[in-house]
Amino acid sequence: MDETATTRATVRAYIERAEARDWGGFGALLTDDVVYEMPQTRERVRGREALLRFNQEYPGDWHLAIRRVVADGRYAAAWIDSRIGEEHQDACIWFELTDDGRIERVTDYWPDPYDPPPGRDHLVERW
Amino acid sequence: MDETATTRATVRAYIERAEARDWGGFGALLTDDVVYEMPQTRERVRGREALLRFNQEYPGDWHLAIRRVVADGRYAAAWIDSRIGEEHQDACIWFELTDDGRIERVTDYWPDPYDPPPGRDHLVERW
Repeated sequence: MDETATTRATVRAYIERAEARDWGGFGALLTDDVVYEMPQTRERVRGREALLRFNQEYPGDWHLAIRRVVADGRYAAAWIDSRIGEEHQDACIWFELTDDGRIERVTDYWPDPYDPPPGRDHLVERW
Repeated sequence: MDETATTRATVRAYIERAEARDWGGFGALLTDDVVYEMPQTRERVRGREALLRFNQEYPGDWHLAIRRVVADGRYAAAWIDSRIGEEHQDACIWFELTDDGRIERVTDYWPDPYDPPPGRDHLVERW
């Protein structure tokens, strides 16, 4: 596989192994000193062990499904459908991999619904 | 250029021409019937003319800078730094292009800051 194909497969595995609670397999995708950031809360998790615990301890019966993975050399982005019970939220996750194909940086965004601002209903439809 | 390189250049141009208010150049990147969606507000804009007006009429002295573009065949994602005055917000934008390299679908997410939930401060640092 070329670098992009390796990145794409690794990012798909990151989501699929988290969904499967395959924590050994999940951890094997990460560098020892992986950095995980959530810019919306300005939170950062450092290192494989902390990131494993962060995911293992994440509350609720959460489920992740891949909507799209876009890979480009050592970089990728994943568009995720996440659900806890009836609650649904999309996520956007950015990845950086090392030369040997392990994930060294993850940046997660969890966009919440909000009400549209007034004044543009002549241009938009709602669903 | 191969398909991925064309997609990458087109998506970069989408951001750069919007920032430059080069609406003729911006519109030339789009299909006639481009569909633009904002899932957080469940808003959809249909067609090049409406999408041009949507951007032209967007209030405030907004500025866009590319943080990263990831392109993969006809698909891409852009990580954007957007600013209006002192206000800063990141955006995640997903793109689909036609076989002839025009943008036919754009999906925008605008994640807002929020307070972190309690119970994970043993695993995270804040910035």
